[in-house]
Amino acid sequence: MKLIIVFGGKSYEHEISIVSAITLKEKLKERFDLSFVFCDENHNFYLIENEKLKAKYFSSYEYKNALKLELKQNGFISKKFLSKLELNGVVLNLVHGGDGEDGVLAGLFDFYNIPYIGPRIEASVFSFDKRYTKFYAQNRGVNVLRYEVLNRYDQKYVSFEYPFIIKPARLGSSIGVSVIKEESELDYALDVAYEFDENILIEPFIENVKEYNLAGCKVGDEYIFSIVEEPQKNEFLDFEKKYMDFSRDERVQKADISKDLETKLQNNFKKLYNGIFEGSLIRCDFFLINDEVYLNEINPIPGSMANYLFDDFGDVLEKLANSLPKKKDIKTRYEYIHSISKAKGK
Amino acid sequence: MKLIIVFGGKSYEHEISIVSAITLKEKLKERFDLSFVFCDENHNFYLIENEKLKAKYFSSYEYKNALKLELKQNGFISKKFLSKLELNGVVLNLVHGGDGEDGVLAGLFDFYNIPYIGPRIEASVFSFDKRYTKFYAQNRGVNVLRYEVLNRYDQKYVSFEYPFIIKPARLGSSIGVSVIKEESELDYALDVAYEFDENILIEPFIENVKEYNLAGCKVGDEYIFSIVEEPQKNEFLDFEKKYMDFSRDERVQKADISKDLETKLQNNFKKLYNGIFEGSLIRCDFFLINDEVYLNEINPIPGSMANYLFDDFGDVLEKLANSLPKKKDIKTRYEYIHSISKAKGK
Repeated sequence: MKLIIVFGGKSYEHEISIVSAITLKEKLKERFDLSFVFCDENHNFYLIENEKLKAKYFSSYEYKNALKLELKQNGFISKKFLSKLELNGVVLNLVHGGDGEDGVLAGLFDFYNIPYIGPRIEASVFSFDKRYTKFYAQNRGVNVLRYEVLNRYDQKYVSFEYPFIIKPARLGSSIGVSVIKEESELDYALDVAYEFDENILIEPFIENVKEYNLAGCKVGDEYIFSIVEEPQKNEFLDFEKKYMDFSRDERVQKADISKDLETKLQNNFKKLYNGIFEGSLIRCDFFLINDEVYLNEINPIPGSMANYLFDDFGDVLEKLANSLPKKKDIKTRYEYIHSISKAKGK
Repeated sequence: MKLIIVFGGKSYEHEISIVSAITLKEKLKERFDLSFVFCDENHNFYLIENEKLKAKYFSSYEYKNALKLELKQNGFISKKFLSKLELNGVVLNLVHGGDGEDGVLAGLFDFYNIPYIGPRIEASVFSFDKRYTKFYAQNRGVNVLRYEVLNRYDQKYVSFEYPFIIKPARLGSSIGVSVIKEESELDYALDVAYEFDENILIEPFIENVKEYNLAGCKVGDEYIFSIVEEPQKNEFLDFEKKYMDFSRDERVQKADISKDLETKLQNNFKKLYNGIFEGSLIRCDFFLINDEVYLNEINPIPGSMANYLFDDFGDVLEKLANSLPKKKDIKTRYEYIHSISKAKGK
């Protein structure tokens, strides 16, 4: 089956997306007929030849020699004089962070009627901004850690006790995140976080909290779940460690948890996914505190698509690609205009 | 100043958008250098000559002879052989309902870096689906009527007492809305509502409830508010009446309310608008029940832009057009790729 991997994007996570794409190429090349479409910081699309998909090709800007693509209804097209190339098929949205996870590419693919694996617009909004994830999860009956929102232009006193964690509202991959253990660390950490977003979240930092990651998707009426992973952590993953993390392709060890806890995590996953994340393969990161499950965050386009959590990742992706949600087809009729014109005698 | 009005869209409110555009042409033609771009049900864009902007031009499909446009960075372009036309400037998103209000066009304009008046992606999600409007408003400290959600595939018993009102979750302009006074009316009304959305909302129907509409926008740090209108109602506006409503251009009567209530309505408006609706001119429809203000709905692209509620509508629009929010410019750097390549000795 054909699969078009779209990666890059105008985003702080641009480089990570390149790493994800390189990782997935190796993982999927035998099962799929892969094409790679790179979106650069100027929002131009390029068709990248598979053998050129190496980090240096992008960091050296050599990619600018690749074939430029444009969007059209149902796919991409190259309009070079005398040669015309069309690229149709299911897209895998692999643009982490801005563009990919904030709903921009979703809007684009919806408009151009391109089938895609990835979060739809609503799912993007509820997972991209951590403030909205909080109230989305609460509305769905899923626990979240208590939190406070600070705004750069409307600063208020932080009422949390140390230690706490501060996070820009709208970034993934731990960019701009700090653990604050005492007051002297606060100002610098706030400055760093405000570099990336004018809104930041404060949450209690719980030492040695148990963390469990679970990925999955819905195919028809059935959920396909990955194994549950207990991620290794060094306090928390900073960007550079996460960066390496995005190139993971080795199947990991299943967390040593009870069947009961696994079911609990899956049930929380379903509450979050159902009716809104259809079409995407997401990873939910949970905490376990006093035997209660709490949502930490929803990754609607996880690093290297969390391939390392699945026994047969290619199979999951193919099933998902074959059961993408369809937008209702709306036909415009001009009956009101006709009836009104008639009433006016025109 | 130049203003490009984009209207139409693949939406149940397609016709209404045409009516809005015709209305605004008359209202704005002296103040602005207007262009009209029509989006048809196939998601093709056409440049409509101003004198051809009549309902029949669309219902007869004559518009298909107009100049076809495509999106490019910073604007629209026509790529006819040997003639090239570029259309740049501020866009007014006048596509009511799907495409315009669900975040699809917002994603498109964001991607192509086109300045526009209209809701951004997040604002679209919180106003388009009435379920999300409910919890958005609650999170912002604004009252909403109690409600229940029904899903077509997961039907449950309606626990509300009669009379109640049922609404498809994601449609404006009263499409699919019914007031249910007794059980015998329920099944048919549910069928109608499910025609338009698989999720529907149920709310109590309060006879003779006081309704107040307030439009406005933020320009820099200042809010510009319209007068408050007490809309006429015949139980509630059905689609045909609303349709006529979208052609309104006569300044209406200010509601006879106290300064105190007006301030209350404005404060609720600000709570809803702040930090998310910047760039759009919205109309909030409120109820007053026992002296408490409740949000009914947020119209992020109100019919004919609620021009009839402003003393100098053109002036408001021009100020808004000149203070549109800018997306943060993110430059991609390849420092992690460089540092990792270095570490690997490549």
